[in-house]
Amino acid sequence: MQQAAQATAFVPGHITGFFSAHPDPETARAGSRGAGLALADGVEVTVTAGSGFRLNGEAVDVDPVETVLARLGVDAAIEAETPLPLGAGFGVSGALALGTALAANAVFDCEQTENELIELAHCAEVAAGTGLGDVVAQARGGLPIRREPGTPPYGVLDAIPAITPIEYVAFGELSTETVLSGDTTQLSTAGAAALDDLLAEPTIEQFMRSSREFATEAGLLTTDVREAIERVEDAGGVAAMAMLGRTVFALDNGLSNAGYEPSVCQIDPAGGRVVDTGSTNAEKRTF
Amino acid sequence: MQQAAQATAFVPGHITGFFSAHPDPETARAGSRGAGLALADGVEVTVTAGSGFRLNGEAVDVDPVETVLARLGVDAAIEAETPLPLGAGFGVSGALALGTALAANAVFDCEQTENELIELAHCAEVAAGTGLGDVVAQARGGLPIRREPGTPPYGVLDAIPAITPIEYVAFGELSTETVLSGDTTQLSTAGAAALDDLLAEPTIEQFMRSSREFATEAGLLTTDVREAIERVEDAGGVAAMAMLGRTVFALDNGLSNAGYEPSVCQIDPAGGRVVDTGSTNAEKRTF
Repeated sequence: MQQAAQATAFVPGHITGFFSAHPDPETARAGSRGAGLALADGVEVTVTAGSGFRLNGEAVDVDPVETVLARLGVDAAIEAETPLPLGAGFGVSGALALGTALAANAVFDCEQTENELIELAHCAEVAAGTGLGDVVAQARGGLPIRREPGTPPYGVLDAIPAITPIEYVAFGELSTETVLSGDTTQLSTAGAAALDDLLAEPTIEQFMRSSREFATEAGLLTTDVREAIERVEDAGGVAAMAMLGRTVFALDNGLSNAGYEPSVCQIDPAGGRVVDTGSTNAEKRTF
Repeated sequence: MQQAAQATAFVPGHITGFFSAHPDPETARAGSRGAGLALADGVEVTVTAGSGFRLNGEAVDVDPVETVLARLGVDAAIEAETPLPLGAGFGVSGALALGTALAANAVFDCEQTENELIELAHCAEVAAGTGLGDVVAQARGGLPIRREPGTPPYGVLDAIPAITPIEYVAFGELSTETVLSGDTTQLSTAGAAALDDLLAEPTIEQFMRSSREFATEAGLLTTDVREAIERVEDAGGVAAMAMLGRTVFALDNGLSNAGYEPSVCQIDPAGGRVVDTGSTNAEKRTF
């Protein structure tokens, strides 16, 4: 048995470029199909015994995190840090849920596999209505394609094998709960078409084209987002909208070339993972 | 269309701790069940247009690499570099196959998804008889558990969410082809039992215990390997044998504490990935 007094997990941010919603009464089967980008800008979650949850130093309530801890049957103190804006389409709630699951499993010796922890976090996120597909994508890393909704063994993931710098500008929040709880028919029809196009030509350029098209057809563009996308196109690039947030992203120097001062980061190839279990870890092992 | 003149992929080395063999006439379904460690010591594969294959500067023939290129329908010049010993249980042939697939896909604009490239490399490795489970594990990274043999959608992977330094000492080669082409009944019975034990308690400590037990029961221990495992145990650690090679591995300082001078590396969390497509990549994009 190995019990760490403290553990830290890192989970990448995740921008969804397009999706179709697939609700299901069984949360492990519920989810979305679509594709996105896992970002090296992410969330670090540190868990110790105790209680309380703080995000960037402020006490907050995050439903999926509470659910994860309850399902693991542990009381934990959680400190999370992220450079990502909240409610802006970066999957921060999913990252908090998965990071909490990974770090708490290490601290409290819960003996869960990665797939079990992913399912735990995914189901907590779906139940809270804060997301449908971020957790499984954040667990995989890279440029994940959600071919079938849900977690393993139901969910089926693939990915585009590419690397590229990503630029993004966030203009503000958009409520995932509000969009997902409304009529998603138009949005899901557009998402299914975008996925077909991507699977016919699975490249990062087609991902951007599919995402760009979806941004228009989903009917979610705000004025600031629309203007940024058009300015990037005028400068010869392609940009799209992070689903769901008032955030625009582009490859390479797309936003810089259009006169914005974007955040810049790489794609995170690894996905959610434990990154630190303390220096005394080895001394505690018993075989 | 994006065409890189040169691309480099990194694929982690992979030590299998225990396994059961599951041959199948359909190579995508053939494979192994078991568990192992993906290592930050791995293989870098650089692909350009041209011909010829060199590993650490020497011209060699590697069947799975040839098969991958033939299946992609491209002619490529390949330069591979690795600090890992060959034929010693680190999955170098699998890494070469997967690395070639990832890098060649980027250079020649083959428009394959990650899963398609993993299947290509896995099938090439199985057909050559050089491995059964390394490729899928190397693609996932971390501490992969192969719950069901083969590639997606047949193969089912899970993982142990842990990090730890790994030490290893390689005493020499052991022919994977010879072992796998012989009677694997005893070995597979032991491997199935080891996997049951691990799934009942999916921790890195149980992985080491399962691997240690398998090393004895599989009947493959050489004198040098047996002695090293026993010396680590005498020093209070647990070591096991890399399948298939005359290599001993341990967690933390297990081999150092037993008086060896091991190689030391971390677990690679990301798995096989493209790491470089050249600085002019962005300029070549056409949307």
